[in-house]
Amino acid sequence: MTTIASITMSLDGFVTGPDDRPGQGLGVGGERLHYWVFGGPWTYDGEHDFDAISGEDKAYYDVLIERIGAGIVGRGMYDAAGAWGGQNPFSGTLVVLTHRTADPHDESFTFVDELGEALRLAREAAGDKAVSIGGGADVIRRALAAGEVDELWLSIAPVVLGAGKPLFDGSLELDLEPLDVYQSRWATHVRHAVTR
Amino acid sequence: MTTIASITMSLDGFVTGPDDRPGQGLGVGGERLHYWVFGGPWTYDGEHDFDAISGEDKAYYDVLIERIGAGIVGRGMYDAAGAWGGQNPFSGTLVVLTHRTADPHDESFTFVDELGEALRLAREAAGDKAVSIGGGADVIRRALAAGEVDELWLSIAPVVLGAGKPLFDGSLELDLEPLDVYQSRWATHVRHAVTR
Repeated sequence: MTTIASITMSLDGFVTGPDDRPGQGLGVGGERLHYWVFGGPWTYDGEHDFDAISGEDKAYYDVLIERIGAGIVGRGMYDAAGAWGGQNPFSGTLVVLTHRTADPHDESFTFVDELGEALRLAREAAGDKAVSIGGGADVIRRALAAGEVDELWLSIAPVVLGAGKPLFDGSLELDLEPLDVYQSRWATHVRHAVTR
Repeated sequence: MTTIASITMSLDGFVTGPDDRPGQGLGVGGERLHYWVFGGPWTYDGEHDFDAISGEDKAYYDVLIERIGAGIVGRGMYDAAGAWGGQNPFSGTLVVLTHRTADPHDESFTFVDELGEALRLAREAAGDKAVSIGGGADVIRRALAAGEVDELWLSIAPVVLGAGKPLFDGSLELDLEPLDVYQSRWATHVRHAVTR
């Protein structure tokens, strides 16, 4: 059972710009982090074309989707994404890590309040596929610190944000091994195995 | 005349580990940043095999060397490298940016105390080739902030150090465009154009 952590960060290591919140999920200027997701520039105000992903970005994303059977996200990410309109956008089980498990939520999400339990449920649901931890940064750091992550898939956007939420906060030391790389105009996607 | 900034950083954005100093130029644990330079693991105590670079690391390095006609480094990097044994290891002009220009130094180095002057001298010496700013991080940040860098060549080592000198310190916002990528066991080398 492989556990993958996947997230997009800037060249200076931020997974959001400053002031991320519902309706502005990646913060000020942070939408540039996800240009690769939508095939190029988009804004918080406009429509999102979920079919516009292409080329190396699509190749990378398709490999991720093919590999994973269940996902875990933190409550902050769930809220910032507006609960994806109220319904799990992903065909597999999506576990939301939250202390407020009694909050109303669509039954397509599973709310749990403990990382170990989230991993247990997601791994059970994933069958012979992998579990993906999609963020936020705090959930990924906790899983890395607990030694629960086998692969770290980083999409590195070609932007220096200067501020925001950092993926790494000085609490971790890790050795990794690059596995492969995909590059487009909007991101360099590097897959790593966590070796220590 | 193209000006390239090239440096190696960890996945968490550090160009050294903690406590970098002469004899331990990349700090505690920071030698892992430069495994790619010597074809794999090395230590501060052992010999360095300058011919061991291979594969994609060598391909990337050869492109850099082929492109550049002159270089600029900061005094901290010069000192941390022990002045490369006292003599410029590079066939072209190497300008050292330092406030202490009167300090004794081999004539194979050019000491200047102002970034604009360093760029002017290096560009003049480079002829039709590029100028490379090789670090440290502070010199690269100043050149980026001044709009003097056309390309940022980042070698990203597959390690999370947790501490050290950061390449980016929150003072810069930049947009870049990935140009190409080279990947080995010890680094993912990403060439970018600076677009803003």
